[in-house]
Amino acid sequence: MTDIQETKESLSASLQQVIALLDKHKLVEQLVHNQDMPKHDLVESLGHRKNLVELQRKLDSLHPADVAYILEALPLEQRLDVWELVKAERDGDILLEVSDAVRQTLIADMDSEELLAAAEQLDTDELADLAPDLPKDVFQDLLDSLDAQNRARLQSALSYSDDSVGSIMDFDIVTIREDITLEVALRYMRRLGELPDHTDKLFVVDRDDVLHGVLPLKRLVVSDLDAKVADVMSEDAVVFHPEDIADEAAKAFERYDLVTAPVVDEHHKLVGRVTVDAVMDLIREEVESEMLSMAGLREEEDFFASVWKSVQNRWAWLAINLVTALVASRVIGLFEGSIEKIVALAALMPIVAGIGGNSGNQTITMIVRGLALGQVASHNMHSLIIKEMGVSLLNGLLWGGVLGGIAYALYGNYQLGIVMMAAMTLNLLLAALMGVMIPLVLNKVGRDPAVGSSVLITAVTDSGGFFIFLGLATIFLV
Amino acid sequence: MTDIQETKESLSASLQQVIALLDKHKLVEQLVHNQDMPKHDLVESLGHRKNLVELQRKLDSLHPADVAYILEALPLEQRLDVWELVKAERDGDILLEVSDAVRQTLIADMDSEELLAAAEQLDTDELADLAPDLPKDVFQDLLDSLDAQNRARLQSALSYSDDSVGSIMDFDIVTIREDITLEVALRYMRRLGELPDHTDKLFVVDRDDVLHGVLPLKRLVVSDLDAKVADVMSEDAVVFHPEDIADEAAKAFERYDLVTAPVVDEHHKLVGRVTVDAVMDLIREEVESEMLSMAGLREEEDFFASVWKSVQNRWAWLAINLVTALVASRVIGLFEGSIEKIVALAALMPIVAGIGGNSGNQTITMIVRGLALGQVASHNMHSLIIKEMGVSLLNGLLWGGVLGGIAYALYGNYQLGIVMMAAMTLNLLLAALMGVMIPLVLNKVGRDPAVGSSVLITAVTDSGGFFIFLGLATIFLV
Repeated sequence: MTDIQETKESLSASLQQVIALLDKHKLVEQLVHNQDMPKHDLVESLGHRKNLVELQRKLDSLHPADVAYILEALPLEQRLDVWELVKAERDGDILLEVSDAVRQTLIADMDSEELLAAAEQLDTDELADLAPDLPKDVFQDLLDSLDAQNRARLQSALSYSDDSVGSIMDFDIVTIREDITLEVALRYMRRLGELPDHTDKLFVVDRDDVLHGVLPLKRLVVSDLDAKVADVMSEDAVVFHPEDIADEAAKAFERYDLVTAPVVDEHHKLVGRVTVDAVMDLIREEVESEMLSMAGLREEEDFFASVWKSVQNRWAWLAINLVTALVASRVIGLFEGSIEKIVALAALMPIVAGIGGNSGNQTITMIVRGLALGQVASHNMHSLIIKEMGVSLLNGLLWGGVLGGIAYALYGNYQLGIVMMAAMTLNLLLAALMGVMIPLVLNKVGRDPAVGSSVLITAVTDSGGFFIFLGLATIFLV
Repeated sequence: MTDIQETKESLSASLQQVIALLDKHKLVEQLVHNQDMPKHDLVESLGHRKNLVELQRKLDSLHPADVAYILEALPLEQRLDVWELVKAERDGDILLEVSDAVRQTLIADMDSEELLAAAEQLDTDELADLAPDLPKDVFQDLLDSLDAQNRARLQSALSYSDDSVGSIMDFDIVTIREDITLEVALRYMRRLGELPDHTDKLFVVDRDDVLHGVLPLKRLVVSDLDAKVADVMSEDAVVFHPEDIADEAAKAFERYDLVTAPVVDEHHKLVGRVTVDAVMDLIREEVESEMLSMAGLREEEDFFASVWKSVQNRWAWLAINLVTALVASRVIGLFEGSIEKIVALAALMPIVAGIGGNSGNQTITMIVRGLALGQVASHNMHSLIIKEMGVSLLNGLLWGGVLGGIAYALYGNYQLGIVMMAAMTLNLLLAALMGVMIPLVLNKVGRDPAVGSSVLITAVTDSGGFFIFLGLATIFLV
């Protein structure tokens, strides 16, 4: 039995062991280098080889997912040292497990032959995941090495867009006919000798591969052996098409608690299956990319990417942010005359802008989530705006009142306090209105509301907050 | 076969149908009310009942998860109208599916008897999910209605903390002995007649319920019938303890592609199992609560919660934000003299602060993710700080140069441009340093780095940005 607590400890313990062994290894190499002695002798005598053998043994004992984890946690140089030591026949599985950014660093270190050998260990659906990262000539060699069926599968898998069911399906399907008895079916299973991972159901097809139903294993093992497959199978299984949106499929997996589901083409011919582990990976990836894009990172970053690569990954959002900050700065510029007269305005204005941005982001997070779930749409937009405006009004009077009081206490000017409270309330109302409208409009014009909503609302509440506060101050105080 | 495309369409179509039927229903009631006619007659004549019957039929045809979806998408009044129409025997399943906030609105509408009836339809592990929301007296009645084993199970399930494996495990376990043949095992299965959802393996235990191994169904159906369970079972299955952290279990499910896994106590006695659907729900919940807390919402909100409830859910983060904004405001207050002399400083300072916040949040998102994966820790903190500082230096010189140029163009003061560039570079370096340090320190003192990191970094880069920019300006320009 593998105890989860032990697993977890051994995972970080493994990482520490690998690092320790690498350090020893490096120390030895440095000694050799510094003393300029005949390398071969010293290496042997200092146990250089012993370290490497120990490291290799350690790596061999780890699950591919765990080796991937260690590779991701190591800086580039150490990462490539470890990668060298991984047994060639495990390269393919490990390449599948590492993140895209790290995969590129590993592939860059392999020659065509090694890549081809790694790729040849993989199933067609796994190849489809790896293929976009392979050099063109290696990919061509790979295609040539496949038989006709697998080549056709790989090419069709690559033709589906990244967010489609086709891109996450695999071809590990076990099919039976509906006119046989369960006893015959079981005999057929035993002849197969092994079933693919995650097989929780058999797919019942006719001579033309048209799907007629599914036979869950747990029904197969409890039913009468003389019964026909047709009588026991379930005909109302959830099926997908390769063009279906993968995210919708993931929701169906969650909603209907699926483990595997068949994928059929337009003629209802079985072409593959989707498994729950692919769906879980998809959910994680989606969620991560959403969180990254909310923070203004284009994609998952290798922790040890070069400074230059990181700058490229991040510059776009910084540039957008700069433009919106410049706009806000020009809004302030309009009121420089007022600020010269009442310098307290300069100190107070960031508060009005900041609270608006904070509150607007709360609203937007709610609405984006509602849109993703399909529960927010035009039919309830009206009542959502009313509600969010109500929340803002209450917060504006409450916190605006507190801030107005503080402004009065600091500067001894009660009119300044009143302008502060009014500006905060108005900016919060603006934040509520735009917090509902921005994601709905982005959604309407076909853009992902999760990306960019936050930047847009902050731009509006910054410029808007400065304009409202300084404008009111100019009218009533200057 | 259920086509996913149809499912999706029919789900939003169902929502629209329900809304249309509710509207008709309301129209009739209003007519009755306005015209003050004998309610009974008119209701009959206007087809009032017909609408309700149609609505009820529609609801009966939907999966509990789909009814839950519709309930969440409706404003309170309509939600309760629909809830009234749901068949009593489905109440329990639907209560399990709705979000916590919506569940509370539904439970508030039910009397003790209805609640007890709903609870009695559920399994013990499902009851444990529902129990915290039940009124005390109903919960006591419920406990009394259970037999000894289920009462003990419920009480122990409730004793585990929300983030433990105990809180997500269920008790739908099928056990066999290791000394029987597969043929006998299969005969036993057939006598059971049905296996629990998600059963992908049988648990092999001895007389004392001590777990010896697991027998995957897919191995059961392919192996020789004369073989003993002990020879076919797998002994190195991943097992959990009820006290294990649920999130670690989820990672193990992803890493090792599990569908179900046994849960054992300290004596290795089998006490329950974890299924992949519970794990998927957990991942979704975690991710959502992380996204909500990043935006400053305490918990998932009912879209149609009262304004007052929403204010309560959001006030804490707004208050924290106000305090940090006040601090930043006081920093500006220190330099009011300088601003009076060079009013351009007021217009330019939010740019320095804003870019710092943006860049700091990018860094923090990376580090928080690395911490969650366990790949960022003290051993690579040093190289991460170096790298992030490098990114900041490059961005500072690049964007600071651009901004410095713009400042020069706007105000015709080249010294102002140089101060601008220097301040941006320094604030970006501060953002990089704190962006790595804040989550690592929060993590070290045992706090969740995902919560609050973003607020803290913005506080530092705001106050720091104002201080650096206005300070440099005061030294070199005033």
